[in-house]
Amino acid sequence: MKKVALGIDIGGTNTAIGVVDQEGDVLSKTSIPTPKDGNVDSYVASIAATVRELLAGLKGMVDCEGIGIGAPNANYYTGNIEHAPNLAFKGVVPLVSLLKSAMPEMRNIALTNDANAAAMGEMIYGGAKGMKNFVMYTLGTGVGSGIIVNGDLVYGHDGFAGECGHTMLVPGGRACGCGINGHLEAYCSAGGMKRTAFELLAYYNATDSLLANKSYNDLESKDIYNAAVQGDKIALKVFEITGDYLARGLADTIHHTSPEAIFLFGGPTAAGDILFNPIKEKLEGYLLATFKGKVKILPSKLKLGDAAIVGASSLVWKEVEKA
Amino acid sequence: MKKVALGIDIGGTNTAIGVVDQEGDVLSKTSIPTPKDGNVDSYVASIAATVRELLAGLKGMVDCEGIGIGAPNANYYTGNIEHAPNLAFKGVVPLVSLLKSAMPEMRNIALTNDANAAAMGEMIYGGAKGMKNFVMYTLGTGVGSGIIVNGDLVYGHDGFAGECGHTMLVPGGRACGCGINGHLEAYCSAGGMKRTAFELLAYYNATDSLLANKSYNDLESKDIYNAAVQGDKIALKVFEITGDYLARGLADTIHHTSPEAIFLFGGPTAAGDILFNPIKEKLEGYLLATFKGKVKILPSKLKLGDAAIVGASSLVWKEVEKA
Repeated sequence: MKKVALGIDIGGTNTAIGVVDQEGDVLSKTSIPTPKDGNVDSYVASIAATVRELLAGLKGMVDCEGIGIGAPNANYYTGNIEHAPNLAFKGVVPLVSLLKSAMPEMRNIALTNDANAAAMGEMIYGGAKGMKNFVMYTLGTGVGSGIIVNGDLVYGHDGFAGECGHTMLVPGGRACGCGINGHLEAYCSAGGMKRTAFELLAYYNATDSLLANKSYNDLESKDIYNAAVQGDKIALKVFEITGDYLARGLADTIHHTSPEAIFLFGGPTAAGDILFNPIKEKLEGYLLATFKGKVKILPSKLKLGDAAIVGASSLVWKEVEKA
Repeated sequence: MKKVALGIDIGGTNTAIGVVDQEGDVLSKTSIPTPKDGNVDSYVASIAATVRELLAGLKGMVDCEGIGIGAPNANYYTGNIEHAPNLAFKGVVPLVSLLKSAMPEMRNIALTNDANAAAMGEMIYGGAKGMKNFVMYTLGTGVGSGIIVNGDLVYGHDGFAGECGHTMLVPGGRACGCGINGHLEAYCSAGGMKRTAFELLAYYNATDSLLANKSYNDLESKDIYNAAVQGDKIALKVFEITGDYLARGLADTIHHTSPEAIFLFGGPTAAGDILFNPIKEKLEGYLLATFKGKVKILPSKLKLGDAAIVGASSLVWKEVEKA
């Protein structure tokens, strides 16, 4: 009997559910729609049915230790999803409590936001094995983060710590999705990179750039990467500037928590050295002497496709350890 | 027999040593010079002699649990003071280990920097009693900070976490003492407030300000407070701007660690509402909806004069708790 944990990733459109072993390998997975009508009861019933079906398919082979869930606006302490703007559920959804009622056989059910889950996943299965103090930045549509101190996630007083994407990078700068100007997310998310690209096209009047033939709505961050690989100057400059922006944000995080490493996760990190080199070069100039040359900037070792469910599942092993 | 802890505060000029009880009251204190010649051995002998003398004066009345030390560039993990620019000691001083050899009778000896010690002091004796997640900002010549997560100080990977004074407030802004431009300390320390005052005098050509008759080297932050109390417009504007700067920095800290409260300590906080009101007003505009109205901004309850030794002594009770 292999010990396994369920990982559930709740997105705006789909909810991915997978069975994950202690090495972080996904043994079985599927997905169900995240309801558009906001009906919590049928959603919980549907999760429970799907979980039982997945486990039935592995019957006799696995022993399930519990369920870990990654979701937007998720509060670890209460087990609630609270006022998530990208989900149809209204107000506060006591998801952990509802799932415990629906699946009383589950020993552990824990919930946090997706970036926290990714950080925990990195520690349990990934490149942060053995580390006690590190930070994970997730770069995608937004920028999330999870902070590990003394071997556990920092949830803070009310369960919502780790919002490094909403630290102030450029006072009075770009509009951030949250309504406040100048946040890191407006510069370092995939969308932020696109905004940088369009600013640079305009600034240099770069009609010959490979990026000059796509509309604002059509350009994706991977187009910027593809152009950079082909030596496009604007695209390379986007990575250079994004690296500088990220370095500034990472320096502030380092000055707060003095981590051993900061892991970067998400689509833009596929650019590898094109992104990591400017970060590393700029970072040293933003650090106090005490921290210079000490903090590793590393790509996440979680596999992009399965990372969300794998990260979510990792919460279970931490609960087992705490129990 | 009253249980007591020794608190030692190592400054550039003097080393304050006091006997503190579990309520944070100082029963006895004195100070010795911090050596200018960098001689560690005679300094350690002198500390040990002074500690024994203080305890001898309270003989039969107290039971000493150990020594807590606050010092610049102090590393809790190693017990070393490392390359402190304001002390005459060269390189790495293994202070805890030397004191343990000099005073084998001491059950606990712990060392950290002064801002961390102040945060611990606030939790053990002050306004943060019972809090598990809060942050302390110390405003003085510099700006220090101590971050408490889950009831203990965040030391980070290498013992130097909590340098919020060196987060980036204004990219490309004022020169900070650390050599990097734009840090919070260059705006929110007592010296930072003076710099703001001189910028404002110049900007408004404010010849009628109460601050217009002192040289740059003569003006102190308490002059700004005294002028503000008398309604001086420039002085009031200094507090308003400093409050805004601090609010931006505190918002970044809140987005990192989601504390229940942030305590402010140090000379400038004597201004009370003149400083705290603009911070509170501006802070809400810099916070994600999740944090708005939730984080208390409070003056430290540690008494200014004794705070350094009281804060240092608090480390001992934490060591007793951990043991």
